[in-house]
Amino acid sequence: MRKDKPLLLVSNDDGVNAKGIHELVKVLRSIGNVIVVAPDGPRSGSSSAITSANPLSFNLVKQEDGLSVYKCSGTPVDCIKLALHTIVPRKPDIVIGGINHGDNSSINVHYSGTMGLVIEGCLKGIPSVGFSLCDHGLDADFSFSLPYIDKIVRVVLLKGLPVGNCLNVNFPAKTKMKGVRICRQTKALWVNEFVEREHPHGGHYYWMTGDFMDIEQDAEDTDRWALQHDYVAITPVQIDVTAYALFEELKKWDLNV
Amino acid sequence: MRKDKPLLLVSNDDGVNAKGIHELVKVLRSIGNVIVVAPDGPRSGSSSAITSANPLSFNLVKQEDGLSVYKCSGTPVDCIKLALHTIVPRKPDIVIGGINHGDNSSINVHYSGTMGLVIEGCLKGIPSVGFSLCDHGLDADFSFSLPYIDKIVRVVLLKGLPVGNCLNVNFPAKTKMKGVRICRQTKALWVNEFVEREHPHGGHYYWMTGDFMDIEQDAEDTDRWALQHDYVAITPVQIDVTAYALFEELKKWDLNV
Repeated sequence: MRKDKPLLLVSNDDGVNAKGIHELVKVLRSIGNVIVVAPDGPRSGSSSAITSANPLSFNLVKQEDGLSVYKCSGTPVDCIKLALHTIVPRKPDIVIGGINHGDNSSINVHYSGTMGLVIEGCLKGIPSVGFSLCDHGLDADFSFSLPYIDKIVRVVLLKGLPVGNCLNVNFPAKTKMKGVRICRQTKALWVNEFVEREHPHGGHYYWMTGDFMDIEQDAEDTDRWALQHDYVAITPVQIDVTAYALFEELKKWDLNV
Repeated sequence: MRKDKPLLLVSNDDGVNAKGIHELVKVLRSIGNVIVVAPDGPRSGSSSAITSANPLSFNLVKQEDGLSVYKCSGTPVDCIKLALHTIVPRKPDIVIGGINHGDNSSINVHYSGTMGLVIEGCLKGIPSVGFSLCDHGLDADFSFSLPYIDKIVRVVLLKGLPVGNCLNVNFPAKTKMKGVRICRQTKALWVNEFVEREHPHGGHYYWMTGDFMDIEQDAEDTDRWALQHDYVAITPVQIDVTAYALFEELKKWDLNV
């Protein structure tokens, strides 16, 4: 690897063979040296899950000039942890997740394996960015998001991000985007979350599905509003989840025994 | 179920047979009607992971006056989603996670399946509290935490919690606790996260382990400080992870193409 180029660590939650990560890597190779450590299959909805009860392994699947691709048996967060512990030659300049097949805006940030790995990079003190396209299709068209990804990654490499902060970038599934908006996480609710099926041998089983219910449709500062109006939604995310606003109230409560 | 009593929905990430959830249920039965929907085995480190690629199922394992216990094939968050969708007779008055075998303070909140299920309850608009003891042992002694749990659950049932806020309560593994402290999430870092083993058939595999590195040991407002000084650490948690402090800076960046 040439030392003068930035080092980009890349993973996702759709697996090493997903179209989204291939499209992402094509853009990133023009920016620096790329190391991909991605799950060996789909891990959607992994959140920040880690694997401690089973051993983990990884294998090199491709090595070209400026690009190494590994597949890993674990979750997206496992991939980042293993990469940082034993694969990368030095601390990466940036951790990048995606491009996710599907929307990670609003409360989806909590379930997203893509954002899980981005938060892991952030916890390790590395500027980290997750990219997602609001299209679940295996063959989704990522092309219109690529110029934005190129721009955002270059700017973050140049300016850095404050420790404890990372970016959740979501693209509308549109051929024409109106530009970027800095957004807050939309309040929302998943409803009708299961489809019930009768088991041929007795009993029932349940498939997770669900309808996304917007609670604040007219709030123009939210990531959902931006996406619904054809903007790229950039939601800055922090790893300190303390609810400071609750301190004074809680301190008044008598909770001692 | 008697309608005059509060309804408490309980889960954990150590599995339905763990000592921690049994101790918890013993306390909660004196407060109201308890429905347990917990994983059928250990799911530590599940975070907010959900299961969408495989079907889920659950079974009743115990039914007594004021107590129903179900085991579920999914993650802690799956348990809460399934319970709310198809098991509970009405919206629970509180969602409770624990008692976790192990420390969920500081950045562990991101990996914790216990806090994952608590955040899920919170996302559904239900007051939600996670309890954890800083002792990983299967036979950990939870007895000294029980009076605090009784008190905290009763107060939360009485006062509620603001929408979008939940509580992460951690107990030191001590026989004498000095009382509760309202804390913020400590900044910290996991290091040395893997042990490498040679595979007898060639190659290597990796077990996740790690050392917890405190970054801010003298900060008296943190949950780690409280635990290290024998206090019960109550860290309020919010589900809005937007980094509002970054808005002005990001709005200055030229990210359009």
